[in-house]
Amino acid sequence: MTADNAAPAIILVRPQLAENVGTTARAMLNCGLSDLRLVAPREDWLSDKALAAASGADSLLRGARAYPGTAAAVADLHHVLATTARRRDMVKPLTTPRQAAEILGRVGAVGQRAGVLFGPERAGLANDDVGLADAIVEVPLNPAYRSLNLAQAVLLIGYEWFQAHGALVDMTPPAADSPPATQQELESFHDHLFRELEACGFLRLEEKKAVMKRNIRNIFQRAGLTAQEVRTLHGIVKELRHGRRYTNQR
Amino acid sequence: MTADNAAPAIILVRPQLAENVGTTARAMLNCGLSDLRLVAPREDWLSDKALAAASGADSLLRGARAYPGTAAAVADLHHVLATTARRRDMVKPLTTPRQAAEILGRVGAVGQRAGVLFGPERAGLANDDVGLADAIVEVPLNPAYRSLNLAQAVLLIGYEWFQAHGALVDMTPPAADSPPATQQELESFHDHLFRELEACGFLRLEEKKAVMKRNIRNIFQRAGLTAQEVRTLHGIVKELRHGRRYTNQR
Repeated sequence: MTADNAAPAIILVRPQLAENVGTTARAMLNCGLSDLRLVAPREDWLSDKALAAASGADSLLRGARAYPGTAAAVADLHHVLATTARRRDMVKPLTTPRQAAEILGRVGAVGQRAGVLFGPERAGLANDDVGLADAIVEVPLNPAYRSLNLAQAVLLIGYEWFQAHGALVDMTPPAADSPPATQQELESFHDHLFRELEACGFLRLEEKKAVMKRNIRNIFQRAGLTAQEVRTLHGIVKELRHGRRYTNQR
Repeated sequence: MTADNAAPAIILVRPQLAENVGTTARAMLNCGLSDLRLVAPREDWLSDKALAAASGADSLLRGARAYPGTAAAVADLHHVLATTARRRDMVKPLTTPRQAAEILGRVGAVGQRAGVLFGPERAGLANDDVGLADAIVEVPLNPAYRSLNLAQAVLLIGYEWFQAHGALVDMTPPAADSPPATQQELESFHDHLFRELEACGFLRLEEKKAVMKRNIRNIFQRAGLTAQEVRTLHGIVKELRHGRRYTNQR
């Protein structure tokens, strides 16, 4: 495992300004991070403006990968954190950047991949993006003025990761019987479950469908499932739907 | 002693760009700092460019005081730290931002005043400026790429200060709309699920039944479910089992 593999990916969701992608690349290089992912960026992240803002970190900018949606950008990751400036009405663990750095270090130390989501400059992450995360990171700052520039938010997370990284590579958490599920495996279970819930009529109220789905997603996202557990859940849904039926239904 | 008096002053020595003075003001406000001092700034720190960069922190910019030299700017301070990117040939204590935050806090706690010096964008502090400081702060970052933007250097020092002294932010997660499920509610869901899994044939292998049940129990136990989520899960199991069926089963 190289240091690069242990370092978390930085995922900018719908960044608005190419300049901010450039300054983010610079902040990442400061902190020894290199995996930059862009979800539907509005501007060209290799424009002159972006390269100038990167101020020497252009190799990182050139290595950035773009994705059409957040789910695709985190598909290969085992652990996803979402940064938010305002509290969400979601039941997810809430961490500081320092606690997040510990989590990221532990995940990397066992050869798993982690990533941190950052939302668009103006609005921050959408609830559906936050729904893809295992935990929320909130930077404890002046409550009267929390608004951080995108690159500065990345810098604070990266800085804490860099401070903790050396101390944490040696820590070996107990090995689970089965590796944790990737985001893609979890998504494929959600797809399966939602398909069957549509079919049986559980998601019949069109106006409640989106919020129901998000609530259900949160339940399984939060459980920190192993790949084996996701297979078990697939089996449960399949058998509940298509297994033997009672002749006398309750 | 108010919180303001305990907070360190930020002293920008010969800043080159008004925009960087603006973004520094923003970073300071993020961290609950307000005492901004400018030594021989090259540009007008109340220009439109600076105010735009301050992005709402203009009261701080308007309150900034200018000085002709560094000695005058630190004259009233009891303890001065100098930030540097490269090592100086000076016999002075060398600290990290985290250690610096402790020092600044201790100084503030006894009613004394502290300040942190930041050099011009291109060259950093002159040795004569560093000479006025009690200790040097060096930010541990990627040794191959240390160059920090001025406001980002201020942000990291301010962030550490805020974590150590300003952060009285409540990090408890938002109260869920629904109270957490009791153990009894959770057990009653497990009973329901297991009953249906028996009925549909999922738990048909007698010798695996106990371990399967334990594994399934673990999944939902770990999710830290709310009472509402348990009700949702009851509904999911019921509908998957007894809702509409496809005519063509997969």
